[in-house]
Amino acid sequence: MPIDQSSQIVITGFDWVPDFAKGYVRDLRARWACEEAGIGYRTRLISAFDRPEWFYAEQPWGQVPVLKDGDIHLFESGAILLHLGEKDERLLPRHGQARADATGWLFAAYNSVEPLSFEMTRVAMAGDADWAKLREPSLRETIASALDRLQTAIGDREWLAGAFSVADIAMVTVLRELHGKDLLDPHPDLAGYLQRGMARPAFQSALAAQLADFDDSRAPNPKQEA
Amino acid sequence: MPIDQSSQIVITGFDWVPDFAKGYVRDLRARWACEEAGIGYRTRLISAFDRPEWFYAEQPWGQVPVLKDGDIHLFESGAILLHLGEKDERLLPRHGQARADATGWLFAAYNSVEPLSFEMTRVAMAGDADWAKLREPSLRETIASALDRLQTAIGDREWLAGAFSVADIAMVTVLRELHGKDLLDPHPDLAGYLQRGMARPAFQSALAAQLADFDDSRAPNPKQEA
Repeated sequence: MPIDQSSQIVITGFDWVPDFAKGYVRDLRARWACEEAGIGYRTRLISAFDRPEWFYAEQPWGQVPVLKDGDIHLFESGAILLHLGEKDERLLPRHGQARADATGWLFAAYNSVEPLSFEMTRVAMAGDADWAKLREPSLRETIASALDRLQTAIGDREWLAGAFSVADIAMVTVLRELHGKDLLDPHPDLAGYLQRGMARPAFQSALAAQLADFDDSRAPNPKQEA
Repeated sequence: MPIDQSSQIVITGFDWVPDFAKGYVRDLRARWACEEAGIGYRTRLISAFDRPEWFYAEQPWGQVPVLKDGDIHLFESGAILLHLGEKDERLLPRHGQARADATGWLFAAYNSVEPLSFEMTRVAMAGDADWAKLREPSLRETIASALDRLQTAIGDREWLAGAFSVADIAMVTVLRELHGKDLLDPHPDLAGYLQRGMARPAFQSALAAQLADFDDSRAPNPKQEA
């Protein structure tokens, strides 16, 4: 069982987030990798709304996840996926074109697709701001065009690098964020790839573990939330 | 000399770009890594304005760089930096906390800082569009806040992971893009870090090599440019 209170691997997540973020916090990626490879981990939960100042010394922007692996400390979920990937060939091929494909697609998720998702999130968070209402249509076009190319590149392959890899953990979680904003509807092959990823037992276990860790008694009071 | 016409390493770049992009095309990152480690490479130049359709089979979005290393084919400059990094410890430490720091900061450049630069570029490219004019002030605030945290995290260290590494190649080139939009002015320590990076002979050689490869006779005619 990946949750193992004696493990030297510690994943930091949040103790509570609002409903729209539940299941989408990025420690999900690290948990998923551990579940795929049967790597035991325990969690350390911090407040997302009253983020401890000391945490910025571990993560420049106060984001999660960070990972401790014995004496090693890592930030950025992409680097954490690489680190966990090196522990098990089922997560990251060791050599050759398969490794090149896995690392190429890993960075593609983080640098070519997710930045568009970030921008859409900022549009959504801005709500009724004039710039956001005016920006949304052209941003949707930009994303649709990027996803067209992505769908062509993925084609009918099951996983990005041949066998399943950390690249799929990254790309599936990124596409899942876009799907939540109805952006995958015109891309049935990408939607199918997303469903394949989410159907994996390791994804389901990781998602359940993240959801189980949220504690509603840690929610900020309404005054803080405003 | 890194430019070596017999090398099995081939970096794909563009044969011409408009003046504002000269010196900023991302094959610069791959060239810089090669220059740091004395890894010979040759170039294959394609048109940015009449991008060959076959190139999308090598890079989903038709972007450069891609890298060939013998039989291995790689896309995404972050993955290329990792691949080149594995060839030389001066680019990427092999083990321990130094490697964790280098990969963490590498992803930080690609996923936590550059997405903001991408959004600012889209604002700048949109010119007089209403959304862009309305968006720019709040985006500048978001970027300033992210750079405050970055400056605190970098502090007075010379390089991100102790010794110079591929993480610095990524972060310096990302900050250089923001600097071109006057976004580093309130962050003198980051500006100093940027200047240290750009002062490296390997950066200067890589920049000169990219600039030397642009061929004005390959510019699209004015009608195509419009």
